[in-house]
Amino acid sequence: MRNIKLTISYDGTGYKGWQLQKNGNTVQEEIEKAISKVFGRHHRIHGAGRTDSGVHAKAQVAHFKTPVDIPRNKIPAALNSVLPEDISITRAEYVDGDFHSRFDAVSKLYRYFIFNSRNRDPFRERHSWRVPYTLDVPLMRREARSLLGRHDFKSFQAKDKRERHSVRNVSHIAVKKRGTTVTVDIEADGFLYNMVRNIVGTLVDIGRGYLSGGSMNQILQEKDRTKAGPTAPAKGLFLIEVRY
Amino acid sequence: MRNIKLTISYDGTGYKGWQLQKNGNTVQEEIEKAISKVFGRHHRIHGAGRTDSGVHAKAQVAHFKTPVDIPRNKIPAALNSVLPEDISITRAEYVDGDFHSRFDAVSKLYRYFIFNSRNRDPFRERHSWRVPYTLDVPLMRREARSLLGRHDFKSFQAKDKRERHSVRNVSHIAVKKRGTTVTVDIEADGFLYNMVRNIVGTLVDIGRGYLSGGSMNQILQEKDRTKAGPTAPAKGLFLIEVRY
Repeated sequence: MRNIKLTISYDGTGYKGWQLQKNGNTVQEEIEKAISKVFGRHHRIHGAGRTDSGVHAKAQVAHFKTPVDIPRNKIPAALNSVLPEDISITRAEYVDGDFHSRFDAVSKLYRYFIFNSRNRDPFRERHSWRVPYTLDVPLMRREARSLLGRHDFKSFQAKDKRERHSVRNVSHIAVKKRGTTVTVDIEADGFLYNMVRNIVGTLVDIGRGYLSGGSMNQILQEKDRTKAGPTAPAKGLFLIEVRY
Repeated sequence: MRNIKLTISYDGTGYKGWQLQKNGNTVQEEIEKAISKVFGRHHRIHGAGRTDSGVHAKAQVAHFKTPVDIPRNKIPAALNSVLPEDISITRAEYVDGDFHSRFDAVSKLYRYFIFNSRNRDPFRERHSWRVPYTLDVPLMRREARSLLGRHDFKSFQAKDKRERHSVRNVSHIAVKKRGTTVTVDIEADGFLYNMVRNIVGTLVDIGRGYLSGGSMNQILQEKDRTKAGPTAPAKGLFLIEVRY
């Protein structure tokens, strides 16, 4: 048996997220269909992270085991030839039999794109959240630092999808501005449902002066979702990298 | 009566081009519907150029006359609030009563985006033509210069949509490469149907070595569409500017 690790880029606009669902097409389903065509039989694939409906990925990772022998360097082009244009396999590797894309991931890096402009731009609406208010980016950057390290992120967890353990370790967080683009990078050992989007929504509330300096730390301490800001839209969020 | 000049940006992916049609939605139709809602009555608008199905615009221009008095600086936001996200009014101006967006245009600048890579990228497929071959960009640049000036561009005119006069004046042409992006800029006093896309298809045939150096001038002289290269896909083409 081969254990194959795939690196995958996708525009999530048209999908109900990564994970298989009864209703609505998902990225996992499209890739499993492509594998069936190329490998001649069905295989279940396992993704590193379950990106939500509308969330994108520059480098999602998934693995699957197969007895079918197809040369590693032929796999991306073969799968891409039967995949829709908004999903692309960028790499295929043979890995150890016990490699698991999800359980072996040490950290994941997400990047959120804010388009900070009063004017619309049809070419940016699809992959960013347009925020028309003036944002105090240095303040957002300072506030974001409160999240660094090991914390209970209960305040930033989706109300309807609680996990038993809400402690995560954020190893890196960066808020950058370049022209009208503000990006928020967050790397952590794991993420709660909607965690990045809730953090970004809170940072924007701080940046526009709706919440004051010191709010981020206070919200974190309160462990109460109702204290944090709104959930930023899915379309601005990208899974950038899964580290092993 | 006010004569109002609009500057419009749109992602043409979902539209059957600019111009009103019986079948299929067009950008003109969407804008006329938005004007009806905001101005309270129907107005016919006139665009500077009829971009084809799937072609985009950074700054298309259109005008319309109206007796309705809405402050100029309120018009973009009012129209945008009822337009779909892939169309945006970026500017509205009051102009002289005899201004005509099409007849008064001195030149138009189109830019074509080639994504020169063997690997797919879901985030670039939508707005560029992926060409997997190695391209000799300096040769493409030299060949493109043959098109500068006043010529009969019959060789680059769509077979099924001939115009009586196929002489146009190309005032600027530039082929640039930056990373995996190759752009072709063409400015002219007017364009034949599919002219930019046929020129780009020919340049790519030259760049990949399928046509030799000197071909561009020869094809131009032959005034025969069958001698030129294929029509590049609509999705890579942008109307960048209309000059008055």
